[in-house]
Amino acid sequence: FSKFPSSLSYFFTPVFYSVFPAASYTDSSDDETSPRDKQQKNSKGNSDFCVKNIKQAEFGRREIEIAEQEMPALMALRKRAQGEKPLAGAKIVGCTHITAQTAVLMETLGALGAQCRWAACNIYSTLNEVAAALAESGFPVFAWKGESEDDFWWCIDRCVNVEGWQPNMILDDGGDLTHWIYKKYPNMFKKIKGIVEESVTGVHRLYQLSKAGKLCVPAMNVNDSVTKQKFDNLYCCRESILDGLKRTTDMMFGGKQVVVCGYGEVGKGCCAALKAMGSIVYVTEIDPICALQACMDGFRLVKLNEVIRQVDIVITCTGNKNVVTREHLDRMKNSCIVCNMGHSNTEIDVASLRTPELTWERVRSQVDHVIWPDGKRIVLLAEGRLLNLSCSTVPTFVLSITATTQALALIELYNAPEGRYKQDVYLLPKKMDEYVASLHLPTFDAHLTELTDEQAKYLGLNKNGPFKPNYYRYLELPRNGEAWVIMSFLH
Amino acid sequence: FSKFPSSLSYFFTPVFYSVFPAASYTDSSDDETSPRDKQQKNSKGNSDFCVKNIKQAEFGRREIEIAEQEMPALMALRKRAQGEKPLAGAKIVGCTHITAQTAVLMETLGALGAQCRWAACNIYSTLNEVAAALAESGFPVFAWKGESEDDFWWCIDRCVNVEGWQPNMILDDGGDLTHWIYKKYPNMFKKIKGIVEESVTGVHRLYQLSKAGKLCVPAMNVNDSVTKQKFDNLYCCRESILDGLKRTTDMMFGGKQVVVCGYGEVGKGCCAALKAMGSIVYVTEIDPICALQACMDGFRLVKLNEVIRQVDIVITCTGNKNVVTREHLDRMKNSCIVCNMGHSNTEIDVASLRTPELTWERVRSQVDHVIWPDGKRIVLLAEGRLLNLSCSTVPTFVLSITATTQALALIELYNAPEGRYKQDVYLLPKKMDEYVASLHLPTFDAHLTELTDEQAKYLGLNKNGPFKPNYYRYLELPRNGEAWVIMSFLH
Amino acid sequence: FSKFPSSLSYFFTPVFYSVFPAASYTDSSDDETSPRDKQQKNSKGNSDFCVKNIKQAEFGRREIEIAEQEMPALMALRKRAQGEKPLAGAKIVGCTHITAQTAVLMETLGALGAQCRWAACNIYSTLNEVAAALAESGFPVFAWKGESEDDFWWCIDRCVNVEGWQPNMILDDGGDLTHWIYKKYPNMFKKIKGIVEESVTGVHRLYQLSKAGKLCVPAMNVNDSVTKQKFDNLYCCRESILDGLKRTTDMMFGGKQVVVCGYGEVGKGCCAALKAMGSIVYVTEIDPICALQACMDGFRLVKLNEVIRQVDIVITCTGNKNVVTREHLDRMKNSCIVCNMGHSNTEIDVASLRTPELTWERVRSQVDHVIWPDGKRIVLLAEGRLLNLSCSTVPTFVLSITATTQALALIELYNAPEGRYKQDVYLLPKKMDEYVASLHLPTFDAHLTELTDEQAKYLGLNKNGPFKPNYYRYLELPRNGEAWVIMSFLH
Amino acid sequence: FSKFPSSLSYFFTPVFYSVFPAASYTDSSDDETSPRDKQQKNSKGNSDFCVKNIKQAEFGRREIEIAEQEMPALMALRKRAQGEKPLAGAKIVGCTHITAQTAVLMETLGALGAQCRWAACNIYSTLNEVAAALAESGFPVFAWKGESEDDFWWCIDRCVNVEGWQPNMILDDGGDLTHWIYKKYPNMFKKIKGIVEESVTGVHRLYQLSKAGKLCVPAMNVNDSVTKQKFDNLYCCRESILDGLKRTTDMMFGGKQVVVCGYGEVGKGCCAALKAMGSIVYVTEIDPICALQACMDGFRLVKLNEVIRQVDIVITCTGNKNVVTREHLDRMKNSCIVCNMGHSNTEIDVASLRTPELTWERVRSQVDHVIWPDGKRIVLLAEGRLLNLSCSTVPTFVLSITATTQALALIELYNAPEGRYKQDVYLLPKKMDEYVASLHLPTFDAHLTELTDEQAKYLGLNKNGPFKPNYYRYLELPRNGEAWVIMSFLH
Repeated sequence: FSKFPSSLSYFFTPVFYSVFPAASYTDSSDDETSPRDKQQKNSKGNSDFCVKNIKQAEFGRREIEIAEQEMPALMALRKRAQGEKPLAGAKIVGCTHITAQTAVLMETLGALGAQCRWAACNIYSTLNEVAAALAESGFPVFAWKGESEDDFWWCIDRCVNVEGWQPNMILDDGGDLTHWIYKKYPNMFKKIKGIVEESVTGVHRLYQLSKAGKLCVPAMNVNDSVTKQKFDNLYCCRESILDGLKRTTDMMFGGKQVVVCGYGEVGKGCCAALKAMGSIVYVTEIDPICALQACMDGFRLVKLNEVIRQVDIVITCTGNKNVVTREHLDRMKNSCIVCNMGHSNTEIDVASLRTPELTWERVRSQVDHVIWPDGKRIVLLAEGRLLNLSCSTVPTFVLSITATTQALALIELYNAPEGRYKQDVYLLPKKMDEYVASLHLPTFDAHLTELTDEQAKYLGLNKNGPFKPNYYRYLELPRNGEAWVIMSFLH
Repeated sequence: FSKFPSSLSYFFTPVFYSVFPAASYTDSSDDETSPRDKQQKNSKGNSDFCVKNIKQAEFGRREIEIAEQEMPALMALRKRAQGEKPLAGAKIVGCTHITAQTAVLMETLGALGAQCRWAACNIYSTLNEVAAALAESGFPVFAWKGESEDDFWWCIDRCVNVEGWQPNMILDDGGDLTHWIYKKYPNMFKKIKGIVEESVTGVHRLYQLSKAGKLCVPAMNVNDSVTKQKFDNLYCCRESILDGLKRTTDMMFGGKQVVVCGYGEVGKGCCAALKAMGSIVYVTEIDPICALQACMDGFRLVKLNEVIRQVDIVITCTGNKNVVTREHLDRMKNSCIVCNMGHSNTEIDVASLRTPELTWERVRSQVDHVIWPDGKRIVLLAEGRLLNLSCSTVPTFVLSITATTQALALIELYNAPEGRYKQDVYLLPKKMDEYVASLHLPTFDAHLTELTDEQAKYLGLNKNGPFKPNYYRYLELPRNGEAWVIMSFLH
Repeated sequence: FSKFPSSLSYFFTPVFYSVFPAASYTDSSDDETSPRDKQQKNSKGNSDFCVKNIKQAEFGRREIEIAEQEMPALMALRKRAQGEKPLAGAKIVGCTHITAQTAVLMETLGALGAQCRWAACNIYSTLNEVAAALAESGFPVFAWKGESEDDFWWCIDRCVNVEGWQPNMILDDGGDLTHWIYKKYPNMFKKIKGIVEESVTGVHRLYQLSKAGKLCVPAMNVNDSVTKQKFDNLYCCRESILDGLKRTTDMMFGGKQVVVCGYGEVGKGCCAALKAMGSIVYVTEIDPICALQACMDGFRLVKLNEVIRQVDIVITCTGNKNVVTREHLDRMKNSCIVCNMGHSNTEIDVASLRTPELTWERVRSQVDHVIWPDGKRIVLLAEGRLLNLSCSTVPTFVLSITATTQALALIELYNAPEGRYKQDVYLLPKKMDEYVASLHLPTFDAHLTELTDEQAKYLGLNKNGPFKPNYYRYLELPRNGEAWVIMSFLH
Repeated sequence: FSKFPSSLSYFFTPVFYSVFPAASYTDSSDDETSPRDKQQKNSKGNSDFCVKNIKQAEFGRREIEIAEQEMPALMALRKRAQGEKPLAGAKIVGCTHITAQTAVLMETLGALGAQCRWAACNIYSTLNEVAAALAESGFPVFAWKGESEDDFWWCIDRCVNVEGWQPNMILDDGGDLTHWIYKKYPNMFKKIKGIVEESVTGVHRLYQLSKAGKLCVPAMNVNDSVTKQKFDNLYCCRESILDGLKRTTDMMFGGKQVVVCGYGEVGKGCCAALKAMGSIVYVTEIDPICALQACMDGFRLVKLNEVIRQVDIVITCTGNKNVVTREHLDRMKNSCIVCNMGHSNTEIDVASLRTPELTWERVRSQVDHVIWPDGKRIVLLAEGRLLNLSCSTVPTFVLSITATTQALALIELYNAPEGRYKQDVYLLPKKMDEYVASLHLPTFDAHLTELTDEQAKYLGLNKNGPFKPNYYRYLELPRNGEAWVIMSFLH
């Protein structure tokens, strides 16, 4: 018999799968030299980049190749671009996470004719091997994992402030790049045809600029496209809530009592997943319509106070602040897990836990035990930051939808005739969302039905979409409640 | 021992539960006299009505009382109206189905101060006992089950054409009443403050009038309110697809292969229910976004042709026409069930089955076997009309949402200052939907959370709603595909 | 436009679908003559039967043909029997429900070579048209709907007490036929090769006879076959709980709070279905193992008292008695629905509601309102009898499994060599269950995998099954708790 | 604004959560000295142990304390034992995984009065910090992560071969310890009262010994207890299939096509989870009864060949061998994921992939790409070993059920009077399973209902269980198909 009884290998291999685990092989040297102080060249002698270690390029290339297999829409765009180059002449400066998926986007933009320069939008998120692979392929990339704040702006500046090269398109994620140009090189906007922005934060900034009359180029809001919303929220969270909880706590879902605060798309995804895994789920809501949906979907609608003593897990998905207060935290039972799936880290009042009588104990990465004087401990995940981004991974498939939308938005803005787009923030038309969706259907071997001419006529639709008819003009009174006569009767 | 072994009573009692089965007790006389030829008075000597048999009033009253228990929102409105009478002076002429739920609505309108006169919007749908109960309570009701077309218009006319009484509000369901006034008494519109219309068909007619510049009073489109849409479609169909199939065919759902054509709200409800009952569900779609949702929800997206030979059930929910053609019907396997949950009876090309080589056999009410020359038979339900309306019942709870919305719309239009509403079709504001929803939450013992002042400020919301922020102006180019530059690249 | 607006046909057709609605066409004559007083002959001049009206035969034949399509296993047995007649010489006397499905079984037995005589096992369950069709085909059937108790035994006697014909096999459902022969014609057992019994009650009686040493022929317990149990309970109840509630109350499931008493197979089916439809389900249990399963499946495990005030529906599935007591009933909220899915009508203490202060109101067939002095009413379904049998229908597919098992058991007993079976009650071997299951797989176009020789050897299995290996001898101490040493420590 | 935009922290923290991540803090010294060569003492000067590093004890203690919170049943046993010590005098030698959960079991056995000596049953699974904590508390533990085969047996021997101490009970997991004593110290069995064995493999060996007449003490088969089976298989796999796939591949489940081979408890769990996450699931089966269940649960039953070209994931759960052959592997599409959830690593013919034309690439821990000459790659997880054990963690709650059962079995065997248990393998009685289950109900705040005296009598049950009545004697013919007469007709 064997010394490795096959049924007994429970803990054989501690499980570690970050987005880019190859790092473990190649980063072991723990090189402490700042990339800014190194002299590096790629194999073609080019040195217009700044990455951790150009020698890691091969590892990064493999990850890019794997990602390409799950990003069929971008690969399809590349094929179409073999003849025509819709981005010929485009000079795109980008500031996003530097990952294998971003690399597939950048190389697609290249294939479409664009020149690109790129920095990271986050000081920790860069995958050094991927940055190396891009630098090796000739992309001027300025990014590494663990930048200082000074490094961060230095990298952005190196993308923008180049002799003999001036960007005419911006692809931003968070608005830092846009901010930098506004602040340092406002004249640059004269040549810039537009901005494509992905994040909630960045879009918010753009609307503020627009409101203030300071937006000086057209901008595309990619964040609010239907496909992104639906996928990033409902479908992605349905999976990442389970993944994030498992990786941090190894807990069993079956039989656990959970309260989910907020029943928007994110909350719906979380609730559906946990219900399916055998948890008993309670929901809190402020909006009566979402509340009624929660009821019809089979969840008890409660106020947080009513269940806080009994639940095993508290999950916030409201976009609101102080949804879980210190008072709630005081009343939770021992071992209660608290985490946030919402838009920001304000939903749980984590600051209120930083008081002398409570002891914090970091038990695992992203897992803190906060211990009350009587020994009660609650399990706080990711310090109240987003669980799905901190403690689980985002499937390439979802990133593919966003990246494709970004590419299409860049093409649109770049090719639009002068004057078509004003200095305002634009949402992609439904047809474009439909197009992005259609590019992803082959992944599922899904076969779309086409309207016959007769049916299209009957429905009053173009056979190629968009497929939501526009029969009615919707007239609403202004949303000011007082203007609505009946309110005086009702309240 | 017993001659009625308790475990063996399978078929003991044939199951019959229409909406108003009491009919069976009281209609047995099979009175053939037309109500128009009868002289009837209610117990107070009033004869301003025309119903089948005033003596059935007691049976009807019981049904109304039962319905009241499930229509908490209307009962709440009655309570509020004990002091103030927001419909005092209103003269409402109505044309709807005459059911217990309608009776609760009518009596609520009365409690709010309105005078009402009422006819049926459908020649078969009147519950005679309920009509009798309303007549007994003093409502001028003109309706019975089994009207002729001539009766139908006679009844409507009796509501409108009254000496010394002229309506100032219209509540319509289908547009027939509105049509009649337009045609016969156009001058009446001078005093009419507005129309409240519930049905798809009626709303469509109003928009056409509006487009043609012929709408001469404001109208409220109740059909497209969020709550009605969500409840009538997703949640109601989730239950009625099962109910309709069971009552007509007694089939077992487990293991059956089903194709659902269309993945809008109705299709989503049907698919979810059948999947939950163990059916294997395929979906067809024309819109890539709905198609991708179907994929993510776990349904194979196919063209109808690909699965037509293998499925046990075909369900249409598209709103389109000729989705199931004769060619499809020819290829279905023996015993395949075909039915429609969509907006009209055009989805299945039933006409194409009226050919000499096919034999029709009516095996049950609403169930036809269509038999091919080789003996193959398909099971056609409700002759392709709406299964959920023909072969299942609509829960009072759903009707309650609609009735409440109708009442609120009447109050609003009646009380609006001159000039606030133009001669156009209005949609209810989201806040009103939220209000209707909130009135129905107590049914589920559901407890809504209230925003703190701090949270409301943080979100930029009024504490009383509406709860969807309105941050952004959404700018879209016209939906004309050609105007979108990228299209020339993509196609 | 039309007087039948297509979208408005809600109540167009009152819904009525019993198992055999054709009755409505043919029974309208309301013939009051007792069948025993009629002289009837079938078209071949045969008069050895007693049914309501031989002229209804054609209607019955159609129902039988429809049933044949859903009973593929019996039809497959008929085909196999074209050469060999495994029941040649068998003289089977049967006493079951007389339905289309039974007719398919009887005609299959005939095709296998048997002679049959048949009576009904329930005075109400006979479908007269089916009885007529069988009589027309030459089967001596003695049954009609609405027999008196005297009729009941007369019919059974007519099957058994025939000159020149003596049964050698019994197929019973409930044990009444067996009882009659024991009581009146005990000598008949000398020629009888065996009994096949389907019902819980009948099986119970047989075990009692066996215990008492009075069972004088071998008997097959068909009731406890795996497939029957699994299908009759879990899968069938998963559908019939919804069907039964809808047909009786038209209620909406979404958001309703339900308590299910008992989490055996029936309870599991009910809970799964209601959860899927959006109800919030609580479970009560006495067995900790089932209780833990309920927890892991996502149901709150409670005592009935804890939730009785808040639930909308109470469903019993325990097999126990007085699970719902008058005290519980007193505490239920207004409009609470109470029904039973368990083994008998003892689970709800209905008798306790027959007190003077409570008013009973029959609002529909199978639906009573019981009204408290303060006006509270509860909705009692089927007077506490089995909801699934009283208020829904049993799918042919499930009946097919049972009927096939009955046919196989008859064949086995009839062909067994003398002495193989003792005077005891036998359960069918797992292999037979597997065989019945395999005959039903084609219905689902399901393709079974076959073991390779190598795999069969590896698993130690015969390639044709049975597929549960029998590695271990399970040794347990007697179930007497005290014999288990640890008990003294634990308690 | 911030350089850490909160919404952008995707990859901020690579995710790593093994069962005992604290290892990363304390093992960094990468001490290469073999523990066998070290001189270590705990704080009380005791040196009767051999672990990696006694200084890690504090870290291990924290993990043990966390585990205690999720093992309420063992903690309850400790409380009961404060007076009585049911294991006083017991000398238990154990060989299991050394984890925090095992530590809770060992310390419970200690609290019950036992002396323990312990070794690891797997050379990789020991958590060094836990071993250190146990050693610090005075338990003679001989185990570390990364033992050689020689180390493995040395450790076992150090537990058994002690001067002045001889075990009288064995707790084994896999049978290695039992094997060693049989081989080296057969005389020891004279004093041993019994063996408690947990694993499939170990139980199999015991039955073989028993069959061969060589089992010389009674043994308890803990593996086949109802609770362990149900929890380890259905409920645990329902969660671990998702966890294992996510941690290894970061894939999205929605819309993926999956084939699950085998529909036993493990397969049922996998199918339910994947269906709930939006995958489209096909099932293969050899047993018609399980096959019919799969159909009724909504899965297409196919042969593997029929879907192998189209699926994205292949999961084996059969317990069989060569279910996925090289031929299947050759036909899979690019990027197909292949993994095993079954009993051993034989289900996928991994050996067949070790051929020269295929390239293996280790892309992550436990993840291999196998690359065909044409570039197609399949993703093989854990080299075909058990995914749930290799790539996910087992929830403490499940381990708690097993550990409690082990403790109870030890108490029973130790306290049984001479002669009660023979030299055979015993299964725990249902009552014991019920007891273990009941100890775990408080975790879910689950409230069991108690039978009234009247109900217990009605059901013929003891109020304290066991709750499955034993009415019938089940007589089956021997399972030899040929003995069943009907078989000759059927085949």
